[in-house]
Amino acid sequence: MKIKITFLFSFFLFISYAQKEDSLTLRKLYDYYLTKSKCYSNLEYLTQRIGGRLSGSAQAEQAVYWAKKALYEAGADTVILQPCMVPHWVRGGQELCRVNTKTATRVVDLKCVALGSSVGTGTNGLTAKVIEVSSFEELERLGEKNVKGKIVFYNVFFDQTKINPGHAYRDVGKYRVLGASQAARYGAVAMLVRSLASVADDEPHTGNMHYDTTISKTKIPALALSYVAASKLSQTLKRDKDLSMYLETHCETLPDVLSYNVVGQLTGSEQPNEYLIAGGHLDSWDNGQGAHDDGAGIVQSIEVLAAFKHLGIKPKHSIRAVAFMNEENGLMGGAAYARFAKDHAEKHLAALETDAGGFVPRNIGVDTTQGLYNTVVQWKALFQPYLLDNINKGGGGADLRDLQKNGVPCIGFDPDAQRYFDIHHTAADTFDKVNKRELELGAGAIGSLLYLLDKYK
Amino acid sequence: MKIKITFLFSFFLFISYAQKEDSLTLRKLYDYYLTKSKCYSNLEYLTQRIGGRLSGSAQAEQAVYWAKKALYEAGADTVILQPCMVPHWVRGGQELCRVNTKTATRVVDLKCVALGSSVGTGTNGLTAKVIEVSSFEELERLGEKNVKGKIVFYNVFFDQTKINPGHAYRDVGKYRVLGASQAARYGAVAMLVRSLASVADDEPHTGNMHYDTTISKTKIPALALSYVAASKLSQTLKRDKDLSMYLETHCETLPDVLSYNVVGQLTGSEQPNEYLIAGGHLDSWDNGQGAHDDGAGIVQSIEVLAAFKHLGIKPKHSIRAVAFMNEENGLMGGAAYARFAKDHAEKHLAALETDAGGFVPRNIGVDTTQGLYNTVVQWKALFQPYLLDNINKGGGGADLRDLQKNGVPCIGFDPDAQRYFDIHHTAADTFDKVNKRELELGAGAIGSLLYLLDKYK
Repeated sequence: MKIKITFLFSFFLFISYAQKEDSLTLRKLYDYYLTKSKCYSNLEYLTQRIGGRLSGSAQAEQAVYWAKKALYEAGADTVILQPCMVPHWVRGGQELCRVNTKTATRVVDLKCVALGSSVGTGTNGLTAKVIEVSSFEELERLGEKNVKGKIVFYNVFFDQTKINPGHAYRDVGKYRVLGASQAARYGAVAMLVRSLASVADDEPHTGNMHYDTTISKTKIPALALSYVAASKLSQTLKRDKDLSMYLETHCETLPDVLSYNVVGQLTGSEQPNEYLIAGGHLDSWDNGQGAHDDGAGIVQSIEVLAAFKHLGIKPKHSIRAVAFMNEENGLMGGAAYARFAKDHAEKHLAALETDAGGFVPRNIGVDTTQGLYNTVVQWKALFQPYLLDNINKGGGGADLRDLQKNGVPCIGFDPDAQRYFDIHHTAADTFDKVNKRELELGAGAIGSLLYLLDKYK
Repeated sequence: MKIKITFLFSFFLFISYAQKEDSLTLRKLYDYYLTKSKCYSNLEYLTQRIGGRLSGSAQAEQAVYWAKKALYEAGADTVILQPCMVPHWVRGGQELCRVNTKTATRVVDLKCVALGSSVGTGTNGLTAKVIEVSSFEELERLGEKNVKGKIVFYNVFFDQTKINPGHAYRDVGKYRVLGASQAARYGAVAMLVRSLASVADDEPHTGNMHYDTTISKTKIPALALSYVAASKLSQTLKRDKDLSMYLETHCETLPDVLSYNVVGQLTGSEQPNEYLIAGGHLDSWDNGQGAHDDGAGIVQSIEVLAAFKHLGIKPKHSIRAVAFMNEENGLMGGAAYARFAKDHAEKHLAALETDAGGFVPRNIGVDTTQGLYNTVVQWKALFQPYLLDNINKGGGGADLRDLQKNGVPCIGFDPDAQRYFDIHHTAADTFDKVNKRELELGAGAIGSLLYLLDKYK
């Protein structure tokens, strides 16, 4: 009995000592992040000097070489460029969305943006009447006799009562993604969608769409209207059902382009072929600077390596910061990474994605594969002083989809979501929207998590 | 035994039913706040139409009449104007802070702002050498022989490693508040302080200072330099210790002015002389629009009444929204409210203050007086879906100081604090810095809390 008690006592002393040591290391990590890290200056460069960097663009290429350099500067001993072919969709020029009413004394141009992957109208544009619908069901009820030859306008609202705007986004995403094919099925000539926006302003939100040939073989031009423009159009339609619109978009899809994931590594001292990764996506939409989406995730991931270096932490496993290419319109980078991992028999212990903006930390989602959630949830008290209030089951990210399919336990970093969908995929997703401390606290959470994973896995 | 079990079972059923009912009501309250409330449009009016509203100013007077109107519109059955005499400090005109160095080829003007309650230099200004210190201890060591006739420059930094920037603010506040009297004690002719700022930008932060006659009878002009200006001055001093500065401020303190707290009330149906209050402060600094500080708190408090009205909730106790006057430079409104409550034998069951900005909810602090914390902490699960993650011991607010002294249990609403001290007391505290959803979620937390307090107290 005595032995047992002594053993238990020693065990608890050990646990308590380990927790204290971890707590001190986290404090040092956060001190680094809040006073010395390069998250903010790296983000400034990526967003202000390079700017929007859609897959296949010159800026995306520039971003690849910048990321390689930034990863070496952060202390990576190895930087790998993983090739992947990516779609090369180009906007081509300013979109035009003009309302012609019977009573119009002047031309009314609505703020709009072509959706990614959409075909263009070409320079001759197209003119047609508009039919407003509030759901696919309504579209189906109206059918070909009401829809044929017209522009379908999905006037579907973001549900403001959802506490997490991400859930509202998820609910209405289908109109942006599949709205064109659904409309084409009934003979529509183009489609407009109310921006997937949590704020009632005049910024149109782009984002990817997809021509689903099982729904319709016809590809029609697809655009998003700003919240204000959509409301204006809906009101105008109430007065004049027969109004026509002139649409002009210059977008087109060019041949695929060779691009790269950029993977920076601190090679592990004990299990170099076992990997822990933190990643974001390097590509962004072209209309803004891709600051929250996902410049923030890129600089946070790079900083994991810099923080280890700064504190002189030599990881047991190989730690990687991954800048995935082509999240926005193809996910080719995520697929290439998973393929590369499989081909090289790399064992991934955990993969984290940060692609929800550089906002203040709130939660992480951890999946239950290989008991990862049970491991991470034990660290709740360690993170509590640092605003990471909840460790939930769940987790992953678009770029991790294939890794997750291959059985890798995944983690999603979830900062506060209230402001993300105000600027998501708009021209307003710019550097000045990112708060330095919020960005750094997010980076601190990610760096600390990778530190603990390396220590205890 | 059977009876006991049946009783316990019924009791738990009752608890579970009550919790479900509360959960449904909170959902309705948040739906109201996120889709119909006037928080945001009220804030727009208060900040954009009225603007900065320092005690004693025409704008503060305008704000009093606006608040009265807004409270009636929100559904108050009674609006009381509680008189209080407030200080009337005026800035008088643009401050000037000019560096003259031996090597200067051109004049260097530093961004600065006079501190509230400071005396001015007058139109003739003052010219003197500068001595930089990093603490009161250093000032004391330097003593009269090094300080006399000079401008003391407190170059004290905000500690960026503090996770709550409010704690960093608290640590360095003494230099702004007492720096002038401490400097005057050793014969200084003016004082400059590095802005109490969490961001390294060029916005100077004002705030109140106090001449402590127990330290020195001499009143010297006091100004804050922006973060960038303070760094520039410090660097210049390293090159040229003998540089002199020209300071010019036009501020002065005029005779006290009659002003008011504005108190809107929904009179209780059962205990009309028992009160639950939510309040913010109506006054603000003059250099910005007082959007986060504390327009946000004002519109959130007003909305408590509107939400009750909208949902047809008839409170048992009297519910008050209080727009306190003169929080920034005197706390005369808070004192007047407590005096009025005492004189009229009003029994206050709880008092909440919201004066930490219109940011996303995180915590509330509740004091333990009369078991209030123990009551509120039971509602933790009810608030969990709404981002109010922590119910902590503590709580109160500057305007509640005297109520708290009189034994009233107090609550402080603590939204996320990361961005507050970037713009606190600056020209950048403007309407556009407030996110609609964040403001409304804060209001929802406050309204829901008042609802539960009314139901269960």
